[in-house]
Amino acid sequence: MSQKLNTPKGTRDFSSFELKKRDYLLNILKNCFKTFNFEEIQTPSFENLTTLTGKYGDEEDNLIFKILSSGDKIKKADTESLKENKLTKFSNSLSDKALRYDLTVPLSRFVSQNLNNLSFPFKRFQTQLVWRAERPQRGRYREFLQCDVDIIGESNFLDEVECIKVYDTVFKRLRMPKVNLRINNRQILEGISQLMNLDSVNQISSVLDKSDKIGVEGVINELKKRNLPDSAIDQLIFFLDLNGSNEEKIKNLRNKFSLNKISTDGIDLLEKIINTSQKFNLNNVELIFDLSLARGLSYYTGTIIEVSSPEEFNIGSIGGGGRYDNLIQKNNPRLSGFGISFGFDRISLILDELNLFPSELDSSKSFLFLNFGIEKTHNLLVFIDELREKNIRCELYPSDNKIKKQMDYANQRGIDYVVLIGEEELNKNIFKLKDMSSGKESSFDLNNIVSELEKLS
Amino acid sequence: MSQKLNTPKGTRDFSSFELKKRDYLLNILKNCFKTFNFEEIQTPSFENLTTLTGKYGDEEDNLIFKILSSGDKIKKADTESLKENKLTKFSNSLSDKALRYDLTVPLSRFVSQNLNNLSFPFKRFQTQLVWRAERPQRGRYREFLQCDVDIIGESNFLDEVECIKVYDTVFKRLRMPKVNLRINNRQILEGISQLMNLDSVNQISSVLDKSDKIGVEGVINELKKRNLPDSAIDQLIFFLDLNGSNEEKIKNLRNKFSLNKISTDGIDLLEKIINTSQKFNLNNVELIFDLSLARGLSYYTGTIIEVSSPEEFNIGSIGGGGRYDNLIQKNNPRLSGFGISFGFDRISLILDELNLFPSELDSSKSFLFLNFGIEKTHNLLVFIDELREKNIRCELYPSDNKIKKQMDYANQRGIDYVVLIGEEELNKNIFKLKDMSSGKESSFDLNNIVSELEKLS
Repeated sequence: MSQKLNTPKGTRDFSSFELKKRDYLLNILKNCFKTFNFEEIQTPSFENLTTLTGKYGDEEDNLIFKILSSGDKIKKADTESLKENKLTKFSNSLSDKALRYDLTVPLSRFVSQNLNNLSFPFKRFQTQLVWRAERPQRGRYREFLQCDVDIIGESNFLDEVECIKVYDTVFKRLRMPKVNLRINNRQILEGISQLMNLDSVNQISSVLDKSDKIGVEGVINELKKRNLPDSAIDQLIFFLDLNGSNEEKIKNLRNKFSLNKISTDGIDLLEKIINTSQKFNLNNVELIFDLSLARGLSYYTGTIIEVSSPEEFNIGSIGGGGRYDNLIQKNNPRLSGFGISFGFDRISLILDELNLFPSELDSSKSFLFLNFGIEKTHNLLVFIDELREKNIRCELYPSDNKIKKQMDYANQRGIDYVVLIGEEELNKNIFKLKDMSSGKESSFDLNNIVSELEKLS
Repeated sequence: MSQKLNTPKGTRDFSSFELKKRDYLLNILKNCFKTFNFEEIQTPSFENLTTLTGKYGDEEDNLIFKILSSGDKIKKADTESLKENKLTKFSNSLSDKALRYDLTVPLSRFVSQNLNNLSFPFKRFQTQLVWRAERPQRGRYREFLQCDVDIIGESNFLDEVECIKVYDTVFKRLRMPKVNLRINNRQILEGISQLMNLDSVNQISSVLDKSDKIGVEGVINELKKRNLPDSAIDQLIFFLDLNGSNEEKIKNLRNKFSLNKISTDGIDLLEKIINTSQKFNLNNVELIFDLSLARGLSYYTGTIIEVSSPEEFNIGSIGGGGRYDNLIQKNNPRLSGFGISFGFDRISLILDELNLFPSELDSSKSFLFLNFGIEKTHNLLVFIDELREKNIRCELYPSDNKIKKQMDYANQRGIDYVVLIGEEELNKNIFKLKDMSSGKESSFDLNNIVSELEKLS
């Protein structure tokens, strides 16, 4: 019984009060995306399982919510795999669909499916729910809203510049404090892993990803535990210790790389992005070249960015994104993608704590007609009908309960005005109006009821 | 590979063009609900399995999409049940969550969970996706948007009247043709089943439910196949043959019932609803008392209603609802619920075919700045920034591709104006503007670019 009464772990209900705040934030995001001339699409909540798996990384694949096949299909359950404890194989025999894990992989599927109908660069935005079987924490849920903009087309650094400006504009419109936007490039990390004589950048990327939580020292300790040779770790320390302005870091990095004849394409690109972004008058984001930024998702291949929460908030990043070539290129080798995501719930949490939501989220007034019995109700229905025609928010209390009970309802619902038309009022051809915030009562000619209430609405 | 490229069966992507139409419809629905002073809530996409099952009926329960348990939980798979072909038991051992099947059962859970924080009557609206593992058909999908309004509180016939008026108002605002709203009451059907000497109304309700497709004759044939005694079938024929106005049907029904001393509460209620609804000036719905209306979902206990599609459309109902006592009463015996649902996709289909969507769904103009190479781009970014500050929809083509390619993009994207500022224009301190619908080109002083474009936007 008690289980029945709850929402599942990591999920939430939203009351109308919370939804008004969410609508405010969502409208700012969507309007901004439209101003940048992104176009909206929506994709289904679930995709074929094969569309989703193998794109995010093994750890992430385990966090995908799979949908149990229905009807006779589950007869195909691969119980042998269960016996051998091959749980992924077992679960894949029971499912051919799964809930969306992000909006990028569904976008790639959408682009592949509609290749001939789209014009490129294809600039799309999408604000839909995603689901992850993660352990819930503050600001992190199993069902959450993602708000993404992506540009699919030939790879061009202006895509990165455009998306960085989207972040800047949204945060400005939300009146948020300035935040750090960390930027790096996966190719540079590849170069570093070569200097470290590693087989793959994956040997360090998952550890680097924690650097904003555990610091450079924590990263070093973690890598030592993994038995990386000291010489390799020393190489990495050199890069993580680079400091100064973005220009200085880039200069030092370039020197080190050219000594070792490693491609500097990634550095060139990064420099162009940083320099051009400045032309756009960034107000609310501070671009910081950060070599410790790695980004978890394995589909990123070039530029990666991440937006930190304002300093006083310890809730991780409030947005991130990157360039992904391989997701899209299977079907069209000339296409690349770059996109960013807004962490809706975390941004909402920040707006709440900094009191940045407007104090009046809904300025229209509401009216409650008290109910004095069915025979008097019939007249009221006509007034109510006329008011609603004018989009005025009003209702009739549905039963002739005691007046106190009806007034309690008005109070609890936050009704602005209560309209009283009882026996006495009808005889005098008037209506009484009670202003619920001031408590004042006044009387008016019943013939003017619609125009009088319209004035107040 | 081919599977990867598709959306799963019964699901759809939505392009920006389609979404603009959906937004139009959704806004009319939501604004209408707000005018009636319903408040919005949202609930999670999935609920605990126990919350959902056992409410809709056995057939419907099989159409619920269950979510496969993740991690080690699937080790608990009840393979014995699989061997014994008890598939429901097997699947329940693999799942403890399921996707929302409707919005009513989640609402009941919400009310039970928040009993002490809500004020009653609780008037809520909710517009969210629901999922059903049905066979897809025209206007019927596995993922679809449901738009519901419900009133939870002490049972009162004015709830029914209010919701009937919601239908009327929405259809009027959509400029739809008048539609039939069929109304019946489960208690009356109970009475009929007693007169037929049946054990339960369920013996006829599923057959009656098909009456709008197979007609009265089809219903009779179907019941004969099920070996119902002729005397029972004759009783039913009497009721299904009742015709004339609502008043005449009610009168005849009342006579027959009082002869048999069956409670006429359901008839009294129905009469009150029909009479009071007329006071509300119904414009777009015709209320029709229809004894063959049964409604599939097993949680309905009183009034049931269903809105037929306009005559020329053969796509079934475009909305329906009813009163449900048992869903809510477990936790508070004084509460009852009445609610209705709008079939968003079918209504959308009708608006499309009757050309009822406004011709201009988005009247704001868009601008594309052509790209003449990176060094000329820097100035443009400043203009673009200023325009976007004014919420003017504009963008820079991201690379200096051939002008023809850039113009093709403008055409395909439906850009309204193209802005050209090349070498020549810069030297003369002008910009050229091409109106993409007329093809006309004009030149302007570059110093006035923001104000000139603002005039057009």
